[in-house]
Amino acid sequence: MYNITLTLDGDSRVPLYEQLYRYFAQEIQSGRIPAGTKLPSKRSLCAHLGVSRSTVENGYAILVAEGYVCASPKRGFFVADLTPYAPPQPTPIPEAKARPQAAEEAKVNFSTSIVDTSAFPYASWAKLNKEVIYNSPELLQRGDRQGEPALRRALAAFLREYRGVHCDADQIVVGAGTEYLIELLLQLFDPEVVFALEDPCYAVTWHCVRNSGRRFRFVPVGEQGISIPDLCASDASVAYITPSHQFPMGVTMPAVQRSRMLHWALSTPERYIIEDDYDCEFRYGAHPIPALQSMDRNGCVVYIGTFSRSLAPSIRVAYMVLPVPLLARYRSLFGHFSSTVSRYEQTVLARFLAEGFYERYLRRMCNLYRQRCTRLTARIRNLDPDIRISGDGGGLHFLLTLPDRSEEELYAQAAEAGIRLHRLSDYAHEFPPRPSTVVLGYGGIRDEELEPAVELLRDAWRL
Amino acid sequence: MYNITLTLDGDSRVPLYEQLYRYFAQEIQSGRIPAGTKLPSKRSLCAHLGVSRSTVENGYAILVAEGYVCASPKRGFFVADLTPYAPPQPTPIPEAKARPQAAEEAKVNFSTSIVDTSAFPYASWAKLNKEVIYNSPELLQRGDRQGEPALRRALAAFLREYRGVHCDADQIVVGAGTEYLIELLLQLFDPEVVFALEDPCYAVTWHCVRNSGRRFRFVPVGEQGISIPDLCASDASVAYITPSHQFPMGVTMPAVQRSRMLHWALSTPERYIIEDDYDCEFRYGAHPIPALQSMDRNGCVVYIGTFSRSLAPSIRVAYMVLPVPLLARYRSLFGHFSSTVSRYEQTVLARFLAEGFYERYLRRMCNLYRQRCTRLTARIRNLDPDIRISGDGGGLHFLLTLPDRSEEELYAQAAEAGIRLHRLSDYAHEFPPRPSTVVLGYGGIRDEELEPAVELLRDAWRL
Repeated sequence: MYNITLTLDGDSRVPLYEQLYRYFAQEIQSGRIPAGTKLPSKRSLCAHLGVSRSTVENGYAILVAEGYVCASPKRGFFVADLTPYAPPQPTPIPEAKARPQAAEEAKVNFSTSIVDTSAFPYASWAKLNKEVIYNSPELLQRGDRQGEPALRRALAAFLREYRGVHCDADQIVVGAGTEYLIELLLQLFDPEVVFALEDPCYAVTWHCVRNSGRRFRFVPVGEQGISIPDLCASDASVAYITPSHQFPMGVTMPAVQRSRMLHWALSTPERYIIEDDYDCEFRYGAHPIPALQSMDRNGCVVYIGTFSRSLAPSIRVAYMVLPVPLLARYRSLFGHFSSTVSRYEQTVLARFLAEGFYERYLRRMCNLYRQRCTRLTARIRNLDPDIRISGDGGGLHFLLTLPDRSEEELYAQAAEAGIRLHRLSDYAHEFPPRPSTVVLGYGGIRDEELEPAVELLRDAWRL
Repeated sequence: MYNITLTLDGDSRVPLYEQLYRYFAQEIQSGRIPAGTKLPSKRSLCAHLGVSRSTVENGYAILVAEGYVCASPKRGFFVADLTPYAPPQPTPIPEAKARPQAAEEAKVNFSTSIVDTSAFPYASWAKLNKEVIYNSPELLQRGDRQGEPALRRALAAFLREYRGVHCDADQIVVGAGTEYLIELLLQLFDPEVVFALEDPCYAVTWHCVRNSGRRFRFVPVGEQGISIPDLCASDASVAYITPSHQFPMGVTMPAVQRSRMLHWALSTPERYIIEDDYDCEFRYGAHPIPALQSMDRNGCVVYIGTFSRSLAPSIRVAYMVLPVPLLARYRSLFGHFSSTVSRYEQTVLARFLAEGFYERYLRRMCNLYRQRCTRLTARIRNLDPDIRISGDGGGLHFLLTLPDRSEEELYAQAAEAGIRLHRLSDYAHEFPPRPSTVVLGYGGIRDEELEPAVELLRDAWRL
């Protein structure tokens, strides 16, 4: 008979019958008690372990109920055939792919994804949070799948006033970040639809489309945004663009081009434009440019925005405004889904908007970023008369071109000196990007770091 | 010349040049000023409006920069050709599809999606929130894309102890709800992979797979869970199952069947099992059944769980444990993505787990639901000796079969009496479900409502 090495622990929180069950289940699973083995009779096990009959009975009953053991009337208990699996093949867990040259190692980090949260009205935010959470147990229950109505109303008002977006709160879908909304959006289109992506473009958009298995084409970006002749020549019927401040080129699409984009969409049924207005809150020109959506009278533009750049990266709230036909499709496909954002966070954000905190914060940050951009670009221009800066009319990054130097040289020399920046070609795919160009984000460059950062660049590039 | 109806408002917050720009941009966009029209000269407009020259110059400069207007040297300013779009076709916004027989209308709501939050330790939750939010401004910055390490460590410990899941915190991916994680998971498999779904099954799982455009097959569910012979006969290579408490049948897959499932997965490379342990926290039998994942030694099981049922529907936090090969694929495909859950909520949840609140709450709720289930099923059985209850060994729902009555009759009579319940066929697809059966969730039936609810059922069904 199989040798029982079980000792029960009377002081454990785990009941004795459960200990007994676990022991046998494990021994059987591991193959240490082979299939067909007869287990000790209840009576002899009671005696062996010095426990009550009910302990053994309960333990055996579970083993039988779970199929580890078969009870054969009058004959006893036999181990079931759970033919052992192939021997375990321990595979080491892969290291998480480090983001190239992690922030903590870089002396100066010109990453485009850093947002300055040092001026965030943290005390007000915390207070709103406290007020909402202490007073709203009802928010534990399931909310509206498109997002809290109060947040959508506040958003509709904000988008109308600041971006000229015409929409009803009912057309807004709130979701946990732009990536999530893009994944959802892709599913609203026919599986055979071909998407047009700007080249160069934001990596995450590209990854979303690629991962979804959808068909897509790259269309080159010129001085006026996506090339409309190339778009028209392609078989794409949904174009994903960043007209206010193309990422990463930083160009703004002029009204005539916007008008042509709308013509492109209207010229064939079921064509759509996805307008990603990812950093629209920060414009340093004389006036904010209204969204492309504001020119659309035919419901062919999907407008997407996010709070992750305007507030903080960890605030995972993005939103999209769906034209009516897509809204209907969304409701039929996703009617059973729940919102991906905490109702508490949504409610706090709704108050943050409705009570004017957001507007005040944006004004402050827009000034802060504008000044930073102006100071930084002025100092960089001073380094060398050949340096060309572009795309600095808004957002949190600009392009730096230094003719006669290769992009790789600029990048490598900066990296050598502990400066993290992006190559323009990091964002490019099929079309050769402007040569000798790197991309500098300044969300992470604080005022006091600005001068040393420029000096470091000068030394790295030997200017 | 075009008749200018513009009046500038010197008291507005909007600068005069901006008002001027907006007026012309709108008039041009709408087609009220036709393409080719010559705008008034700067000088005459200054005189006409009684404003400074710089106001007009700034306004015109923006119009030119945006492409609304072309400046022709020495000739003046001409409206660009933004050929007017097709006339607006106002489309009414569709009504949101109401969930059938909304909760507020039903006298008694046996929906399976309601969770009882009346015993939720709201004060402790609010206090943890306050502590975290007042002390952690650093959480505004971007966090780990797989989820906060503290939460993943707490989860790994919980899953090990309560479900026998063997995993490292590095294998866990936290996401905003099960739907989100399923969508992400689907993308980790080859586009040609065929998924097996249980029939009947949870509607949201099915919608996720269908919306993604992936190929899938339904496999019937028997008394021991998914039919393994049918699964083997299909061309599926990834099976999505609920072995602990099949939804909606409520059956538990015995160990021998689990072993066969693992054999199925191991018999061919690249086969996987997705184990959705959606309501594992509530088991009313003698002991909790370990997860299928706990028997897997070869990394072919993906384990999924959620806090939306164990805590509250609005807490949109789910998690999955990825086997190593899928983890590597996840990291290569989603390396650029951000977590979909607020870092604050994750940090609160990590403390809720680590400080024992979660365990205490689960114990309490498990008792509460067990007692409710026992009382409710006992009273229902008393109504008629033919009534058969099944699937009541755990979770928040059970099946009620009343032979000789059609499912439709049971459903319609209940609806007539203001009782909301589900037809079993609501979850079925290709295989005819057990006849005469309805599904009753009791998350929303409070203690004092229990007796009246049973009486209402009795009257509705004339028992």
